Amino acid sequence: MPSVHALGEVALIDRLTRRLGVVRRGRGVQIGIGDDAAVLRGSGRQLLLFASDMIVDGVHFRRETVPARWIGWKALAANVSDIAAMGGRPLAAVVSLGVPPATTARFLEDLYGGIARCAKRFRLSVIGGDTVRAPRVVVDVAILGTVKRRHLTLRSGARVGDRLFVTGRLGGSLKSGRHARFMPRVREAQALVRRVKVHAMMDLSDGLASDLWQMSRASRVVLRIRRTAVPVARAAGSIEHALMDGEDFELLFAVSRRDAARVPGRIGSCPVTRIGAAVARGVAVEQEGPNGRIRPLIPTGFKHF
Amino acid sequence: MPSVHALGEVALIDRLTRRLGVVRRGRGVQIGIGDDAAVLRGSGRQLLLFASDMIVDGVHFRRETVPARWIGWKALAANVSDIAAMGGRPLAAVVSLGVPPATTARFLEDLYGGIARCAKRFRLSVIGGDTVRAPRVVVDVAILGTVKRRHLTLRSGARVGDRLFVTGRLGGSLKSGRHARFMPRVREAQALVRRVKVHAMMDLSDGLASDLWQMSRASRVVLRIRRTAVPVARAAGSIEHALMDGEDFELLFAVSRRDAARVPGRIGSCPVTRIGAAVARGVAVEQEGPNGRIRPLIPTGFKHF
Repeated sequence: MPSVHALGEVALIDRLTRRLGVVRRGRGVQIGIGDDAAVLRGSGRQLLLFASDMIVDGVHFRRETVPARWIGWKALAANVSDIAAMGGRPLAAVVSLGVPPATTARFLEDLYGGIARCAKRFRLSVIGGDTVRAPRVVVDVAILGTVKRRHLTLRSGARVGDRLFVTGRLGGSLKSGRHARFMPRVREAQALVRRVKVHAMMDLSDGLASDLWQMSRASRVVLRIRRTAVPVARAAGSIEHALMDGEDFELLFAVSRRDAARVPGRIGSCPVTRIGAAVARGVAVEQEGPNGRIRPLIPTGFKHF
Repeated sequence: MPSVHALGEVALIDRLTRRLGVVRRGRGVQIGIGDDAAVLRGSGRQLLLFASDMIVDGVHFRRETVPARWIGWKALAANVSDIAAMGGRPLAAVVSLGVPPATTARFLEDLYGGIARCAKRFRLSVIGGDTVRAPRVVVDVAILGTVKRRHLTLRSGARVGDRLFVTGRLGGSLKSGRHARFMPRVREAQALVRRVKVHAMMDLSDGLASDLWQMSRASRVVLRIRRTAVPVARAAGSIEHALMDGEDFELLFAVSRRDAARVPGRIGSCPVTRIGAAVARGVAVEQEGPNGRIRPLIPTGFKHF
């Protein structure tokens, strides 16, 4: 019997999803497992978005190096980012917190302070949750959001001919601390869905290369990026890190060739960069080098198992 | 600076709730932290319920003694129980799962199998979540439910003169394995809210004595139970265990004196027992012994920290 380590995360999730297959499309559920958030019927033209994200000390952050308030910020912001990537706005969250008994109340107050600050910034309510004992700090946030039916953006909607864009600059987020202090792209996503018809959108969490594969698999289109076009964050140091590092929490999105001209070069202070296109039907991700040579883009990003 | 252990859970949660005070009543939120679930505006006469519950290996179960499928069942059923206690019906859940890398795929499939079984039994959808690495198995489930406005039952609605009831038989749930294999009281709660006006309701998770204090604090009424009236589970062995043991996942509820006569003695195969009344304004829980003597009922139940 293979262990989780041997299976790898994608295979594991596929397997578990199959196990849940019988129940994932029920009363009021429009879209189940497999996107940034699940979609439920809401009231009128509003749909409900529902997602969760767990972060664990020693895996997603280190208590020794990340201040408690930024752990709290990250726990909620990662969920807000999921809602943003669906074209929605956050509404409310519940927080489950596991902590070792020796944790100081100060640490927890700072952590909740970070959650509260993020909630205030994005005008959502933190309305409940659970606090339990655990061997290490673990924070799980579940979030509800709303999205107008016509604004809903899945990762499965990219079409051949679409242009690909990313917000922000990529890579080095662990080194720079941005993996915890990032600003979820709610405003930017809202500006986009109002301005153009976004065919597909997702947030970057596993690294651009890996997330491009996710969009390719979901949309059944071959995605090709130009290496030199990818916006590299200062802390990344190299294009390789911009392609492979995880936890950017930027947006990756696809719009028609026609709409591409109407995507602004920046939204507020956030740059928006065209990095490539969907070039054919199929499942693959390719990179075009400065010499025009085209090669597959194989992820080497962070693996959970 | 006090540690979590020194503060105790109630004081800790009070403190964290204060920290979140600024944000807990926002757009669409009707009731925030402090009940079994939060309440959000839904569509028409429907309200949305939103709750989460985290369970950790070594705290809420032991992997060595509880089969994986029952761990999964418990993780979801505890949330279904929260929705039932608000007078609602479960709609959808997201599951966050933390597992050590050496966990076998078989263990996880069994765990998800338990979740799927519970989802099917209560006709809700499991529509997403997150699977991450963690030092020990931790399962966090967030749940959405719906409730008709007129069926909504909070723990804060008990009034002087109300009669108190519990479903099922209490105590010994850890010993008997019922703490994992329990049946959430959705059907029973629905039968009750349709039949009578339930003033206050909650599920029993910390032990009857402790949970009575919660209802007393929330409703600002003194609750008095007759010791001899409390239904004792076979595995409990003694009335003391029935009062103090946690994780019964039965319902505790209050109805007017008049409605009390209309509460059935059983719903399906589940006994419903009158155990006492709300006797005065104030915050206290009292027990009346077989000799008629009245003493305070002080919880000695499980503490998380």
